Amino acid sequence: MRIGVLTSGGDCPGLNAVIRSVVHRAVVDHGDDVIGFHDGWRGLLEADCRKLDLDAVSGVLATGGTLLGSSRVRPGQLVDGVQRALDNVATLGLDAVIPIGGEGTLKAARLLSDAGLPLVGVPKTIDNDIAGTDLTFGFDTAVGVATDALDRLKTTAESHQRVLVVEVMGRHTGWIALHAGLAAGAHVVVVPERPFDIDRLTERVARRFAAGERFAIVVAAEGAKPAAGSMPFETGDTDAYGHERFAGVARQLSAELERRLGKEARPVILGHVQRGGTPTAYDRVLATRFGWHAVEAVHAGAYGTMTALRGTGIHLVPLADATQELKTVPAERYAEADCVL
Amino acid sequence: MRIGVLTSGGDCPGLNAVIRSVVHRAVVDHGDDVIGFHDGWRGLLEADCRKLDLDAVSGVLATGGTLLGSSRVRPGQLVDGVQRALDNVATLGLDAVIPIGGEGTLKAARLLSDAGLPLVGVPKTIDNDIAGTDLTFGFDTAVGVATDALDRLKTTAESHQRVLVVEVMGRHTGWIALHAGLAAGAHVVVVPERPFDIDRLTERVARRFAAGERFAIVVAAEGAKPAAGSMPFETGDTDAYGHERFAGVARQLSAELERRLGKEARPVILGHVQRGGTPTAYDRVLATRFGWHAVEAVHAGAYGTMTALRGTGIHLVPLADATQELKTVPAERYAEADCVL
Amino acid sequence: MRIGVLTSGGDCPGLNAVIRSVVHRAVVDHGDDVIGFHDGWRGLLEADCRKLDLDAVSGVLATGGTLLGSSRVRPGQLVDGVQRALDNVATLGLDAVIPIGGEGTLKAARLLSDAGLPLVGVPKTIDNDIAGTDLTFGFDTAVGVATDALDRLKTTAESHQRVLVVEVMGRHTGWIALHAGLAAGAHVVVVPERPFDIDRLTERVARRFAAGERFAIVVAAEGAKPAAGSMPFETGDTDAYGHERFAGVARQLSAELERRLGKEARPVILGHVQRGGTPTAYDRVLATRFGWHAVEAVHAGAYGTMTALRGTGIHLVPLADATQELKTVPAERYAEADCVL
Amino acid sequence: MRIGVLTSGGDCPGLNAVIRSVVHRAVVDHGDDVIGFHDGWRGLLEADCRKLDLDAVSGVLATGGTLLGSSRVRPGQLVDGVQRALDNVATLGLDAVIPIGGEGTLKAARLLSDAGLPLVGVPKTIDNDIAGTDLTFGFDTAVGVATDALDRLKTTAESHQRVLVVEVMGRHTGWIALHAGLAAGAHVVVVPERPFDIDRLTERVARRFAAGERFAIVVAAEGAKPAAGSMPFETGDTDAYGHERFAGVARQLSAELERRLGKEARPVILGHVQRGGTPTAYDRVLATRFGWHAVEAVHAGAYGTMTALRGTGIHLVPLADATQELKTVPAERYAEADCVL
Repeated sequence: MRIGVLTSGGDCPGLNAVIRSVVHRAVVDHGDDVIGFHDGWRGLLEADCRKLDLDAVSGVLATGGTLLGSSRVRPGQLVDGVQRALDNVATLGLDAVIPIGGEGTLKAARLLSDAGLPLVGVPKTIDNDIAGTDLTFGFDTAVGVATDALDRLKTTAESHQRVLVVEVMGRHTGWIALHAGLAAGAHVVVVPERPFDIDRLTERVARRFAAGERFAIVVAAEGAKPAAGSMPFETGDTDAYGHERFAGVARQLSAELERRLGKEARPVILGHVQRGGTPTAYDRVLATRFGWHAVEAVHAGAYGTMTALRGTGIHLVPLADATQELKTVPAERYAEADCVL
Repeated sequence: MRIGVLTSGGDCPGLNAVIRSVVHRAVVDHGDDVIGFHDGWRGLLEADCRKLDLDAVSGVLATGGTLLGSSRVRPGQLVDGVQRALDNVATLGLDAVIPIGGEGTLKAARLLSDAGLPLVGVPKTIDNDIAGTDLTFGFDTAVGVATDALDRLKTTAESHQRVLVVEVMGRHTGWIALHAGLAAGAHVVVVPERPFDIDRLTERVARRFAAGERFAIVVAAEGAKPAAGSMPFETGDTDAYGHERFAGVARQLSAELERRLGKEARPVILGHVQRGGTPTAYDRVLATRFGWHAVEAVHAGAYGTMTALRGTGIHLVPLADATQELKTVPAERYAEADCVL
Repeated sequence: MRIGVLTSGGDCPGLNAVIRSVVHRAVVDHGDDVIGFHDGWRGLLEADCRKLDLDAVSGVLATGGTLLGSSRVRPGQLVDGVQRALDNVATLGLDAVIPIGGEGTLKAARLLSDAGLPLVGVPKTIDNDIAGTDLTFGFDTAVGVATDALDRLKTTAESHQRVLVVEVMGRHTGWIALHAGLAAGAHVVVVPERPFDIDRLTERVARRFAAGERFAIVVAAEGAKPAAGSMPFETGDTDAYGHERFAGVARQLSAELERRLGKEARPVILGHVQRGGTPTAYDRVLATRFGWHAVEAVHAGAYGTMTALRGTGIHLVPLADATQELKTVPAERYAEADCVL
Repeated sequence: MRIGVLTSGGDCPGLNAVIRSVVHRAVVDHGDDVIGFHDGWRGLLEADCRKLDLDAVSGVLATGGTLLGSSRVRPGQLVDGVQRALDNVATLGLDAVIPIGGEGTLKAARLLSDAGLPLVGVPKTIDNDIAGTDLTFGFDTAVGVATDALDRLKTTAESHQRVLVVEVMGRHTGWIALHAGLAAGAHVVVVPERPFDIDRLTERVARRFAAGERFAIVVAAEGAKPAAGSMPFETGDTDAYGHERFAGVARQLSAELERRLGKEARPVILGHVQRGGTPTAYDRVLATRFGWHAVEAVHAGAYGTMTALRGTGIHLVPLADATQELKTVPAERYAEADCVL
């Protein structure tokens, strides 16, 4: 067979592991050809691609980034995008395409699939907010990076006798905040799913100081917001590239806590460091399995699906299942975590 | 309530996270007393224990080892062990005990449970070979340590133009070997579940060199063995402490490969470094959730069970389910992994 | 003898290693008593202290923070501070004091030394800007943390096809920026010692993109500033606690670069994560040697000095040498580094 | 100019950083051509080489291994080796050669230099035993890897209530053992420079257990030996490739300690993991500076020298200085370290 592959959307540790796994399984085991599109959907729309052999994926398993490049172009953005994609697939003689990407990518994939393009998606997000799969690769690495940072910040907060408000990724869901907060023993975690009550938050931290502790760590998902009216809060806007610019919850929350507590509070914004670099062993295994199963799905003709982790096995789920709504953190997970307000 | 807790068996990253979580949930949220037994079952048999408050578990979340100590004493080893345990639990006024340990510990727990002791187990093994749970804490850390080592060894093997045979933990199952091998891109992985054919293994490595590659990495679980009669192989024995001494598969396999291939082959034995030190974020989260749910199970009176990960949730399973047989790697997992012979 | 020890100023990986080393050398080898003051100079001024034995320093070698606490109180800040320090030393029967701290601490130490207090300082700064010593502990850890972050950010910058401006610590000197920039292969490094020419900086980045590269990493020490008049630049101010608040060079520089280049540029501020957590092996060795030699200096009566690394040996230098001026990066180090404008 | 470069001997983190730095400085700044020889001296003897441009060294700064390959061939091993090297340098039109290697490589370099070949050496050894330079790149990484392993092993030794004897690299010198032992707080360190007295060693460990401690960590350089006659000790031999095979000091010492103490003692051999993989920031900076200064030395015509770290500066020292004798750990360094017998 002749299989196209592309990576779309933001950086995510494990992308190269998926590509490598697709090539290994398809080329070595099935004798397929694998064609890599450059810069995500742009490469498919412009037929900008190259053949991927074993050499092309040598040494990439442990690397961050994507050897194919990425972009934010989506087929639906162009009036004739869907047709161009179908035409290019036909012209290039491809039997199927494996797009690796996040929610937006999978929605575009569904559009193309509905239009007749044979494809199998691979879900990708450090935020872990794609439905239909227990986990996505990249999330474990992001949590690991955030936890390492929190481990370091704890000693500093204690030495400086401060409150640190540490902003981690998570625009719409609190997965990273919850897991990193649990892993590092954060004292309070605030998340997008649950607008926080600044009075309760302040009281929680104040009680800690009253008990003789000398510092506190608050973890805030970037999309966390105070309950309406509970404190002044600037909402974010949109930048020149059409991306939502977040309001800086760590900055605003630390200022408010400093004012209320009369103790130094400082924001720390971990930022992009959470989405780059060497993936953890966990993410490399998951990404490798996703790639292997995506190739099997292509050979089985199981199109219009994506790979998904369920328990310990990899399954195929309809793209429709994955793109209906974001996977937020369920209430019982928050209930387990005493640090979540 | 008044809850006892103990850690038994070999070291495993995340033990302290479980203890801390038990204390936080029980003491802070339920107002319970928590009593920690020293050195596993020995502490229970000798009523050697201390009360654990929040201070006792401060700062331990990210640490390896166990603040309670461990030992290999099991209640069944003493003629009157079960009765002594029951007596001490009564004397100390405990409502329940939470033993944290591996297969042997859980079997002992089942014995005590059958004898009427109210307990909820927490499974612990870096080997991931306890049935009834998708994963156990400690495994992710062990795989991470092995993967880091393999990443480093790859550059060295290449520079030295050698075969390296890297022995990882796994006496009865190939979980660590499989995951670390996949994560690091090992060229061959041999495991206890599948005695290896030395001819096929040699041919696999020879083909690699014939294709112009300059090195090869073979990962061997410590319990891996050649197929009967396929190569000379010393089997292990038992040491003065009654522990199985393994035969050194890496040493024997590298010597055989060197002889057959006419290329330098060297063994590397990762050893105990895989079971000590700071747990990964993944293991800290899992251990913390296990501790929380164990306390809830005690409060719900769900005795004779252990905590288990199933998908993304923590469930309680009967101790019987966990102690029938080891959880070996299923055939479909090996089928996915091209590096497994 | 009876020796006091204290840690003063901001967090710095290796403080606990120094304290541990002082206790080991003094108590075990010399049979001394060691008294630890709480929260730096405050503990000395208020005679708030405790005896440190081997147990007190058990397990702290690899930990960040300081088991003695720290504060920003300096003896000179109180009208009668110097006298109170001398009185407390007399009352407590101390033969000498070992203050561990940065430039401010060493200046205070000099003041006390001139007033007759027998002391031996140990220099501490992640910024590496204390004169008289080749290096200080904490610096290697800070550079390591910044380098790890830069390694991760590179793959993300490339995937997103962006310029990232990464702000690292260094208010007055460019040591961290230079070393992390060299270690991670940053494309441009800007430092406090050399106000940067925004035209040259822009041109350097533009040339890179013109050559077909898809991203650029700029490292900026927090104290870096543009050459006067070359671009709009808000200077920093002072916060409610009297600390200089920096202007956010990464934020301002990335905005300017985005405007000039017409490419996305984003700031990343590494912040406090650089000064907390487990010290590197290098810093633990240096800290341990400093502690050992400080005790030897006390026993030799070599007061009014501080420990210093010169080549591979630890020497004693007069406190005066260390407190005259900051150790900026010499011109020849910048000349070696092609990434420094 | 036209400059050759080669890497010779065993793997060492930072080799690629040197090559990259040579290419950046020579090609970009001086407009030179850089020719890389394959597999060390073999490439020079067989004129097996390729031109290195910026692309050839892109992305290698943080990688272990050597992009040029290595081998153990030395010019002196071939009757006409020196003449062939000179002929090939002439034929290829090279103005100078930069060999990067250890003691053997530098001796070969000196031979060639004496025969008229213009060269500037770069010292390389994880063992830190090359004279004339304060430190060599690779050493910091090796110490870091060994320290990380020791940190992990401590919790395991404690949980298992064992003595662990950890064998680290160092055939002729104790640098790695000393630094890793200090960094990790090992209880005893034995080194090649000081044959150990098994009675004193046993007594040191026994005293620790008598004081109530539950474990001990002994670090042994691979070349450490007992004082003659103090305990049975098999000496090593030579393998089929002419390499010294060491006797396994950890294995023999742990067996002897177990017999004498009546406590479990286990050997752990860290092995090749110490010489592979990503270099630390420290090593990357040092390697980068060495490469830069080697090119400058070539342009200055300072042949017959090697780059050397002295304090904070890079200097050139005669090859003769570096190849007279190994740099062993000086007595005062051992005197500072209470863990060294």
